[in-house]
Amino acid sequence: MNLANRDLITIEDLSNQEIEMVFALADEMSGSLYQQTDMCRGMIMASLFFEPSTRTRLSFEAAMNRLGGRVISVVEMSNTSLAKGESIADMARVVGSYADIIVIRHPWEGAAKVVADYAGVPVINAGDGGHEHPTQTLCDLYTLKKERRTLEGLKIALWGDLKYGRTVHSLAYALARFGATIHFRPSPGFEMPEHVIRKLTAEYAGRLERYNGVEYVDEKGLFPLDAVYITPSGPHQLANIPDVGIQIELERGVDALYVTRLQKERLDTTVEGQESEKNHRVVDRKLLKEKGFEETIVMHPLPRVDELAYEVDADPRSMYFKQAERGVPIRMALIALLLGAKEVDIPEEKGPSFARKRDYRVYKRSTRLRCRNRKCVTNQETETRYIKPEFEIVSNEPLTLRCVYCEHEIHPQYIASSKWHQGIAENKRYYYADSFMLGRIQQENLIIFDSEDEALARGFKLGKRGSRG
Amino acid sequence: MNLANRDLITIEDLSNQEIEMVFALADEMSGSLYQQTDMCRGMIMASLFFEPSTRTRLSFEAAMNRLGGRVISVVEMSNTSLAKGESIADMARVVGSYADIIVIRHPWEGAAKVVADYAGVPVINAGDGGHEHPTQTLCDLYTLKKERRTLEGLKIALWGDLKYGRTVHSLAYALARFGATIHFRPSPGFEMPEHVIRKLTAEYAGRLERYNGVEYVDEKGLFPLDAVYITPSGPHQLANIPDVGIQIELERGVDALYVTRLQKERLDTTVEGQESEKNHRVVDRKLLKEKGFEETIVMHPLPRVDELAYEVDADPRSMYFKQAERGVPIRMALIALLLGAKEVDIPEEKGPSFARKRDYRVYKRSTRLRCRNRKCVTNQETETRYIKPEFEIVSNEPLTLRCVYCEHEIHPQYIASSKWHQGIAENKRYYYADSFMLGRIQQENLIIFDSEDEALARGFKLGKRGSRG
Amino acid sequence: MNLANRDLITIEDLSNQEIEMVFALADEMSGSLYQQTDMCRGMIMASLFFEPSTRTRLSFEAAMNRLGGRVISVVEMSNTSLAKGESIADMARVVGSYADIIVIRHPWEGAAKVVADYAGVPVINAGDGGHEHPTQTLCDLYTLKKERRTLEGLKIALWGDLKYGRTVHSLAYALARFGATIHFRPSPGFEMPEHVIRKLTAEYAGRLERYNGVEYVDEKGLFPLDAVYITPSGPHQLANIPDVGIQIELERGVDALYVTRLQKERLDTTVEGQESEKNHRVVDRKLLKEKGFEETIVMHPLPRVDELAYEVDADPRSMYFKQAERGVPIRMALIALLLGAKEVDIPEEKGPSFARKRDYRVYKRSTRLRCRNRKCVTNQETETRYIKPEFEIVSNEPLTLRCVYCEHEIHPQYIASSKWHQGIAENKRYYYADSFMLGRIQQENLIIFDSEDEALARGFKLGKRGSRG
Repeated sequence: MNLANRDLITIEDLSNQEIEMVFALADEMSGSLYQQTDMCRGMIMASLFFEPSTRTRLSFEAAMNRLGGRVISVVEMSNTSLAKGESIADMARVVGSYADIIVIRHPWEGAAKVVADYAGVPVINAGDGGHEHPTQTLCDLYTLKKERRTLEGLKIALWGDLKYGRTVHSLAYALARFGATIHFRPSPGFEMPEHVIRKLTAEYAGRLERYNGVEYVDEKGLFPLDAVYITPSGPHQLANIPDVGIQIELERGVDALYVTRLQKERLDTTVEGQESEKNHRVVDRKLLKEKGFEETIVMHPLPRVDELAYEVDADPRSMYFKQAERGVPIRMALIALLLGAKEVDIPEEKGPSFARKRDYRVYKRSTRLRCRNRKCVTNQETETRYIKPEFEIVSNEPLTLRCVYCEHEIHPQYIASSKWHQGIAENKRYYYADSFMLGRIQQENLIIFDSEDEALARGFKLGKRGSRG
Repeated sequence: MNLANRDLITIEDLSNQEIEMVFALADEMSGSLYQQTDMCRGMIMASLFFEPSTRTRLSFEAAMNRLGGRVISVVEMSNTSLAKGESIADMARVVGSYADIIVIRHPWEGAAKVVADYAGVPVINAGDGGHEHPTQTLCDLYTLKKERRTLEGLKIALWGDLKYGRTVHSLAYALARFGATIHFRPSPGFEMPEHVIRKLTAEYAGRLERYNGVEYVDEKGLFPLDAVYITPSGPHQLANIPDVGIQIELERGVDALYVTRLQKERLDTTVEGQESEKNHRVVDRKLLKEKGFEETIVMHPLPRVDELAYEVDADPRSMYFKQAERGVPIRMALIALLLGAKEVDIPEEKGPSFARKRDYRVYKRSTRLRCRNRKCVTNQETETRYIKPEFEIVSNEPLTLRCVYCEHEIHPQYIASSKWHQGIAENKRYYYADSFMLGRIQQENLIIFDSEDEALARGFKLGKRGSRG
Repeated sequence: MNLANRDLITIEDLSNQEIEMVFALADEMSGSLYQQTDMCRGMIMASLFFEPSTRTRLSFEAAMNRLGGRVISVVEMSNTSLAKGESIADMARVVGSYADIIVIRHPWEGAAKVVADYAGVPVINAGDGGHEHPTQTLCDLYTLKKERRTLEGLKIALWGDLKYGRTVHSLAYALARFGATIHFRPSPGFEMPEHVIRKLTAEYAGRLERYNGVEYVDEKGLFPLDAVYITPSGPHQLANIPDVGIQIELERGVDALYVTRLQKERLDTTVEGQESEKNHRVVDRKLLKEKGFEETIVMHPLPRVDELAYEVDADPRSMYFKQAERGVPIRMALIALLLGAKEVDIPEEKGPSFARKRDYRVYKRSTRLRCRNRKCVTNQETETRYIKPEFEIVSNEPLTLRCVYCEHEIHPQYIASSKWHQGIAENKRYYYADSFMLGRIQQENLIIFDSEDEALARGFKLGKRGSRG
């Protein structure tokens, strides 16, 4: 089993087994960091960082250097390198002809996928806007595994900014796949976005119990519990027990408290910023004395600002600097595997499998559907010249399309069928997407419009049966 | 034959044979990119980029790394590193004592020559303002040779911004040396500058037929043909045939269409920008269906903006990504040769030689002559402390001096002779440069003034015989 | 004897013997620059530059590459990498887990010490604001040794900006330790700061003769002599001879003239800038013809602006480019030693020892004493979360505390004793620091306040005996 020539754009690009494979190799490399200098000799990694990220970049570059490979870097604080108006695709093709592997960080969501589509060499996403940051998730999981000996069936509390923190989104998916119970403890106003919740429940098939924090506002120093996610075969049949059961559950404690920083640079408004200031809470020595945290490890993707007190650093439960340190062997393992410099035996299949169901139809017709996320790579001037938007049809109730680049969702209003009209002008009818007609049209024939104007411009007329459901 | 310790500042620093030598080594290295890691082991390349250039920099750095050498880099988006007021010469001396070879990109024209003058190690010009970018030309020529099997006697169309694109200037000289016929198809207002034309005709001894685009304005989608350059022994005796012959000539097609981007960052005025917008034309699939382009390869130095449609990328005639890819073996070969890490047997002399005539006298007297190019390195505050302007006397009709740094030309108005006055005050006479006196004064005795004030200040009086020609 | 796992934050971190040890290894490496590629194979240096410094950074990176090690770099023109609000300590811990050695330049004074406190790997200070730049001092001393064959008993003139130039401060201490006589020739208004003078006299035990430049204003082209520092066993008993003796002394000449650039970026006001313009003097060929400079070598830490004329470059006495060149073997030696990749035999003790006396008590009580230097690392918002200010008590007349981070001094006004009150409220008395009470309180019991408010807030009342001295 090997990972040669694969990309890592989202954590879902790796199966549970493949993740274990990366960890097995990371274990091996941790013990011999200085003996790997021939592993990738003669190979070149391009390290392309179009957003500030000292930590992640240095970690990747240290990893490639420890493997004996070489690094060529682009570090841009702004998009100035793109000042000449070059597209990401062109950059990817050119750099892909210089280097053997590309690591990319970019503010546009979906940018890493574009690079992978054009580079011709393995591509690792080191963060694309608010979308994904899969190697951070690998470091998080690896630390959980090292400290708890297994990934299966853990109970993890996610703390702080669950809205904008891309690392907690990826982590939530990954935890779900390994059968975790997840406690959401967001800073009020920074709850997990609905599309993440949908994915967790619809695709990972777990259940979500919502508490909306109401009953627990008085917990000392803690952000209130907003919801609990339970994987289908989760050991605790939490959903069947009333609130008092939750209380018990909470008192049993969690394996890890995963603290996040408020992503101030991604806030939509200053109102959000002020909101967050009001609800400011700090994980400090006092909070860690609370019942239920006695054996809880404290994790943080760093950099921290002040959500995590320095006094915790000396506590043996604090793991955030170890998380960072482990980034090097994890990335060494990943790079070596993607470059095909190393293969690893398959670990035996064990424990429950929570593989994600995902066989959505992709909608590719040119009907001017556009992603509504203004940070999506498909909406950038330089990229519209060649990228055709594509969407997965993830739900019919209501009609929901997910951008294949940034994974944001849209809800188009109008539909038609390519089968019925078959080029015959008088048969060209469109219907409301929320009418019963949606169920009548097979997905391969589905035509979708964002506006009536678009439908009319293409010669469709409103069908009789297409009134609102 | 070796190139050890040589500099590459302009493409003219390499003979045709030496260029072939670089190509022979690049061929060898293309086939064994990963086996060169001992070639430059222990050597250091300084990569000094004082202007944005992700592509060229990464290409050089990848090349040195593939050779097993090491890279130290300076990447400055502005001149901030020079904020402390240091001169280029001082930087060159210091960096030359750290590294074994220097690659420099700088916005000041002539800067690379200054670095070479002071560094004490081989220097490669990776672009000095609008002046030269010789390794781009090597990549262009190499692609022509790989795709057309020979460099001699090709027919090449240059397209787009021929005024500011330094790559097309260097390429034109190089093509002339290999006996090419060149079609100039500029975006109107962006014609080849006169000093390039002069060099092509006066120094490479070819002929230029001007069409000024008038007769061909209606060609579909094409920029009109402005001029055709024919090397002296060129196979087509184009100059002897009337316009209808040109029509035939055009229909025969060209070997390559070399497309360039408008160098917006170098435009003098926004008027130019607006002018260019008006005349916007795109090389797309439709245009490549035109008669005469059936077997034409499409080249572009990249980055492109929108002068070259993405739909062309899949066309087998498109070569621009191959040009970029070939930059690595070309630069590997060049670096290895200049470092003396490799020697190559001389390829046998073959085909016609179009070596450039160049034995101009250099004018070095301190008579306050200054280059008029405000981007010239000799006109920068930090550099005037030590650089003495020098000029080649390239013509007497009218008196034309070419800056040895940036190659821009000046036309001084007043002359005198050092022989006649020989320190005798009453013999100190100056004359108009456009008088017959210019022919009477031997170049070694020539004194040149930019203004009457300067002549008078030095004790010269207007001579009787010096009235205007 | 080895230096493995040591830091180099100030030049005082190395003994005279250890400095000689670095030089011995640098000598060895100079002769075999290209043969060291296995010395640090597999090791990584993090090169963290948060202030512009092409020269120093490239020198360090070239050194590590010549040793066969690898480099990961951060180059920030501003503090943007810290835009996320991360502290230096967190950065140090994380980078220390990626790399085997850290080189840091930072605008905050004392920042390098903080990095060393947290990194867990050897740290080299490559300049922390106006505080220290010890490897520059090593290059300077090494050049003096190479050119004068010994470091002991030299006579050195320091020229120009002695106020803001951190290199001359470190150099002065180092020269004192090797028994030098130092002539201070500052640009008027840019004299050596008092805290440097204090250290030289109080801790290195030398004597300072002040001339204040008055008598010598007419020296041709020279900055007037402000003061002369003589080490205790210095060969010239200068202090005992009258002014005419100085004249003789001056005419005997100096071994080296160390020229510095005005540190414009550190000027407090534009008034200072204008002042300096007025007093502008240039070291040029003419000045070097003055009596006393016949055998004087000319040194400069570079970059120069115009305090040192280009015409001097060709003079065999000019050493500044050699200083820069020698930076590579010096830094190779230093890195190899700190990484433990190399040990060196101890050179035999020789010559007089001028080791610094330094056994001050450190004041660590939390009484809100703060360093007054606004560039001190202890006064930065991100750092106050974890750094506790600490001070050495360097004098009682008047009470003088020196910040252990940036070495600036403060003079607190109020004192108390922890012994006398021993928790008994009515005994809590504070006194004026300039009263005789200061002498009565043992340093281990000393409590120090910056303000009466602070003393009162802690329950102290003004003691009777504490009136002003």
